Amino acid sequence: MPVPTPALDRAAAQMAAAGVDALLLGPGADLRYLVGYRALPLERLTLLVARADGRHALLVPRLERPRAEDSGAGGAVAIQDFAETDDPFALAARCLDGLPPGAVLGAGDRLWSTFLLGLQDALPSASWVRASTVTRELRMRKAPDEVDALRRAGQAIDRVHAQVPGLLKAGRTESEVGRDIADAILAEGHQTVNFVIVGSGPNGASPHHETGSRVLADGDAIVVDIGGTLDGYCSDCTRDYVVGDPPDGYAEAHAALETAQAAACDAVHPGVTAAAIDAAARDVLSAAGYGGHFVHRTGHGIGLEEHEDPYIVAGNDLALAPGMAFSIEPGVYLPGRFGMRIEDIVVVTDDGCERLNTLDRAAVAVAP
Amino acid sequence: MPVPTPALDRAAAQMAAAGVDALLLGPGADLRYLVGYRALPLERLTLLVARADGRHALLVPRLERPRAEDSGAGGAVAIQDFAETDDPFALAARCLDGLPPGAVLGAGDRLWSTFLLGLQDALPSASWVRASTVTRELRMRKAPDEVDALRRAGQAIDRVHAQVPGLLKAGRTESEVGRDIADAILAEGHQTVNFVIVGSGPNGASPHHETGSRVLADGDAIVVDIGGTLDGYCSDCTRDYVVGDPPDGYAEAHAALETAQAAACDAVHPGVTAAAIDAAARDVLSAAGYGGHFVHRTGHGIGLEEHEDPYIVAGNDLALAPGMAFSIEPGVYLPGRFGMRIEDIVVVTDDGCERLNTLDRAAVAVAP
Repeated sequence: MPVPTPALDRAAAQMAAAGVDALLLGPGADLRYLVGYRALPLERLTLLVARADGRHALLVPRLERPRAEDSGAGGAVAIQDFAETDDPFALAARCLDGLPPGAVLGAGDRLWSTFLLGLQDALPSASWVRASTVTRELRMRKAPDEVDALRRAGQAIDRVHAQVPGLLKAGRTESEVGRDIADAILAEGHQTVNFVIVGSGPNGASPHHETGSRVLADGDAIVVDIGGTLDGYCSDCTRDYVVGDPPDGYAEAHAALETAQAAACDAVHPGVTAAAIDAAARDVLSAAGYGGHFVHRTGHGIGLEEHEDPYIVAGNDLALAPGMAFSIEPGVYLPGRFGMRIEDIVVVTDDGCERLNTLDRAAVAVAP
Repeated sequence: MPVPTPALDRAAAQMAAAGVDALLLGPGADLRYLVGYRALPLERLTLLVARADGRHALLVPRLERPRAEDSGAGGAVAIQDFAETDDPFALAARCLDGLPPGAVLGAGDRLWSTFLLGLQDALPSASWVRASTVTRELRMRKAPDEVDALRRAGQAIDRVHAQVPGLLKAGRTESEVGRDIADAILAEGHQTVNFVIVGSGPNGASPHHETGSRVLADGDAIVVDIGGTLDGYCSDCTRDYVVGDPPDGYAEAHAALETAQAAACDAVHPGVTAAAIDAAARDVLSAAGYGGHFVHRTGHGIGLEEHEDPYIVAGNDLALAPGMAFSIEPGVYLPGRFGMRIEDIVVVTDDGCERLNTLDRAAVAVAP
C-alpha cells in the first residue's frame, strides 16, 4: 500500500478545508512538492490526481513508468500507466470515481490547456478552480530545510555576482558576458541556469531584456539580474554596474533606489501585507520623483519556481508570515538612457526578515 | 496600420474554414510562427488574439512591451499593454468584441490552465477547442526555408554524433558524457540544448532516461538521443553505441531494428497514413519477435517544437503530404538488460522522403 507523503496529507487536509475535491496536476513544481517526481513536460499526459479523500493516483505514459518509479513516487501513490493509443482523459476521469457530479476540481496552474480541455470534456459536470488555491497555502511558507536550500542558492548566486566586475569590459558584448555568467552560475553549484539578464545602456531600461549583441562602452550603466536552480530551489539576484563614469542623473537615482529597497526590506514583518511592502519601496521612489519610472511590482515569491506566490504587488492583502520567501526588487527605468534594479531574496522571520543575498547594493564601478 | 504576416492571413482563412472565431495563444511556437515574437513564459499573461475576421491584437504586460516591439510583432498586430494591477482577462475579452455569444475559441495547446480558467471566467458563453485544430494545418507542412532550417539542424546534430565515440569510455559516468555532448551541441551551432539522453546498460531500457551517475563499463550498450534548437528549428537524432563487445542478443536485435527503421523510411510517400508508417516499423519488429519490446510510437513531428504534429502512431489516419517533417525512431527495450533506438528526421518529398540525418545506423563499437 502506498503511504502518502506528509505534503500529500497536508494537501488533502487543505482541499477539504477549501471545498476542493481533487487536484489534477501535470509536470511541474506542485508535482515535485507533493510526490517528488520531476516529470518531463511532454505532449503525453502525466497527471497526479490528489484527492481530498486520500485516494491518490499518478497517471503516466507507459514509457515514463520507469522514471516515475525511480522517483520514488510509487511509495506515495499508486502509479497507473497507459499505452500510446489509450485515452488518458477517460483514465483520469476513472481516477475520480465516487466524486459527486458537481465536484470541484483544481487544475494545475501550469497544466497545458490541451490537457485541461481534454479533462473538461471527460468530466463535463465538474467545476474548475486553480490548484494554487490549495497548493499555495502549502508552498508559500517554507520549511527550515527549504529555507536552507534557498540560502545555499542565494550564497551561490552572490559568488557569481562577485565575479561580474571581472567580466565587464568596454568592447565585450552583452552576450559574451552573459555566456561567462552562465558558466559561473553552474560552476558555483547550480544545476541549471534559469536566466541571465545583462542590460547595458538603454537596454537596461527594458526590465526583461536578456542579452544581445550590444557592445559595452565607457559610461554604460548595466543591470545584471541572474538566477539558477540549486538542489531544486531557485536563486535570483540583481546588482548594478557602471563601466567608467556613470551617466548624468544615475548616481542620484541609484541613491533613491538603495533607500527604497532598504525601506521595503525594513518593512517586512509577520502580519504586514504584501501590498504594504510594495508601497514601502514605491513611496520612496515617488517622493524622489521616480515613481513613474518604477514600472513593475516590487517582488515575487520564490522556491521551487523562480516566480510563485506571494506576489509583492499593490492590491495583494495577503498577510506575511514566517517562512515566506520572496524578492524585493524595485527598479528605475529611463527609456533610451539606462535602467537600474536592486534585488535580494528575503525570508520572513519571527521579527523581520533575513536577506539571503548579502553583497553590497551600491552600483559597482568597473574600469573601462 | 499593422499589416498581418502571411502566416496570420493563412491562420485567419483556416479559422474561417474550421468554424473557429479566434485563437488565443500564449508564449510558444504558435506565437512565434504567426508573429515572430519569442515571448517569455511568465506568470503574467501574454496573449495573441488572432481573429478570423482579421482584427488581431497582442496583449502584453507593460514591462514586456519593449521586447514585444523589438520582435517586430507590432508591424503585424496592434500591441496593447496592461499594468500590474489591471485585469488581463477583461482586456482579452474586450479584444473579442463583436463576436457572437457562442463564439468558438481556440486556446493555445500549451497555454497554462491558470490563463485558460481566467479566460473561461471572462468569456462564459464561449465554447473552446484546441488552437492546434487550426495551427497544425499551417505548421505541419514546412515551407522550403523551414526545411532548410531543419536540414541545417540535422547536419549539426550529426556532427555531434560523429564525436560521441570519442566521449564514451569505460569509467566515465553518463552525466560526464552528457555534459560533453551538451557542449558539442552548442559548439556545432545550436543556440540551445533541448535534451541529452545517455542510457547505458539497463538504463537504456527506459526510453526517457536522461543521464545519471551510472559508470560506463566494458560490454555496455548505450543509447544516445540528443537534440537542440538551431535558428528556431529543432534537431533530434538517436544512435546506438557499444563499449567493447556487445551483450548477448544485442546484435540480432539491432539488425532487426535497422531493418524496421529502414522499412518505415521506405514506406514514407505522400498519401500514405501516419499509422501505416508506424505499422511498417512495428511489423518488422513483431515478425522478429521484438514486438512486445517496442513500447512507444514510431515518431513525432518536428519543427519549431521538438514534438509536434504529425504523430506517427497507430490510429492516426492523417495522410502524409510533401513538406511534413517527423522522426522515425523505432526502439527495442529489454528491461534490466539494454535498450536501442535508431532515429532520423525525415521530410516527405513528392516521391518519398529525404532523411535529414545521414550517419550510418549500425551500432558503433568503441574500445573500452
